[in-house]
Amino acid sequence: MGGDRAPAMVVRGLDLALVRHPDTRFLIFGVEGQVAPLLANLPKLAQAATLHHTDEVVLDDAKPSQALRTARQSSMRLAIDAVADGRADGIVSAGNTGALMAMAKIALKMLPGIDRPAIASFFPTQRGESVMLDLGANIECDADNLVQFALMGDAFARSVLGLTQPTIGLLNVGSEDLKGHDAVRAAATQLRAENSPIRFFGFIEGNDIAAGTVDVIVTDGFTGNVALKT
Amino acid sequence: MGGDRAPAMVVRGLDLALVRHPDTRFLIFGVEGQVAPLLANLPKLAQAATLHHTDEVVLDDAKPSQALRTARQSSMRLAIDAVADGRADGIVSAGNTGALMAMAKIALKMLPGIDRPAIASFFPTQRGESVMLDLGANIECDADNLVQFALMGDAFARSVLGLTQPTIGLLNVGSEDLKGHDAVRAAATQLRAENSPIRFFGFIEGNDIAAGTVDVIVTDGFTGNVALKT
Repeated sequence: MGGDRAPAMVVRGLDLALVRHPDTRFLIFGVEGQVAPLLANLPKLAQAATLHHTDEVVLDDAKPSQALRTARQSSMRLAIDAVADGRADGIVSAGNTGALMAMAKIALKMLPGIDRPAIASFFPTQRGESVMLDLGANIECDADNLVQFALMGDAFARSVLGLTQPTIGLLNVGSEDLKGHDAVRAAATQLRAENSPIRFFGFIEGNDIAAGTVDVIVTDGFTGNVALKT
Repeated sequence: MGGDRAPAMVVRGLDLALVRHPDTRFLIFGVEGQVAPLLANLPKLAQAATLHHTDEVVLDDAKPSQALRTARQSSMRLAIDAVADGRADGIVSAGNTGALMAMAKIALKMLPGIDRPAIASFFPTQRGESVMLDLGANIECDADNLVQFALMGDAFARSVLGLTQPTIGLLNVGSEDLKGHDAVRAAATQLRAENSPIRFFGFIEGNDIAAGTVDVIVTDGFTGNVALKT
């Protein structure tokens, strides 16, 4: 029920996803009176989807803490709960990002060793596609956060891009060891360690994003958000 | 003597500057054996320029602290001293930025109320040109630094772009008051104050840089450097 021109745009997206992944089955959570007429025009999608009605919707300008306390029957929360219960394998939402992160963190918990979720996305590059994270979930990050983003980005690039040994770069203002603030320098030291499970390329700069110098670009959410929108 | 293909590129730049500003006079500090032959081919520039020989050069990989202690007869330092003595009105260098900032700060001092220098440059926009600072001199900035960058950017836009009342934007991850970290929020509060001498637009996002939403974009040196190179 969230995002620009919802729910029509979301249903259109599901229809496209079904073309690319014909075996996928969908659980749709939303206002039946709005979603059912859209499905009526898409018989293949209607057959692959189950619609769960709810009247409650998380608004785009709702604060995450408020959504967390009050919106327990919202389409967003019910969809997350379906993942928590094992009825769904993942959730897609175009709605309020802050509310989605907060609800997902509470209902799904974090993996062991991961303190905070991150927002990742693909960037087109001169070489193909790279993954970048965090894009705005964590405005201030310490070295441990950045190291954890590197691990998550590595897992994402392996499973979604199908890479066997993705290269990971840490976004900085220069490539020399002494460049940057304490958090990026300390994170680089950890990622360079011999027992590090990932293939750490080292520091990269803004121009390396579009160049495709690495498969995974790791940065704090403030810098990543500005780079994305720039 | 610094920068890519120096000193030939620097001399070529002076020659271009003389075309645009025919009344300008130049003091050139560098290795006579390298610079004099270049001037010999550019008689107009040679007439407008005075060459001061020195053998000493700040290397591109020199640490600022080291350059500050040892390079007192370097071309860079002698050029800065010419500004400090009133023999020159400004200095242009394509050399080691860190050394330039450190030497200039010591020899020229800061204006009252300004704690740190910043690196500013023009960005082409859909609307014309905007000024952005800081682009990397200050990796970590507090609210006062950002407010001072706004004042310096305002002065720069008035004197160099010729604007009478430039608009100033503070780079953030969203336009709402609650967005961002403490430093940008506190800086915005100061810049919004009734007695603020500048025309503060508010928060802007990465996409506002190329859109030309404001005349002056203020940010910390880490974010600004990544945005520039992105």
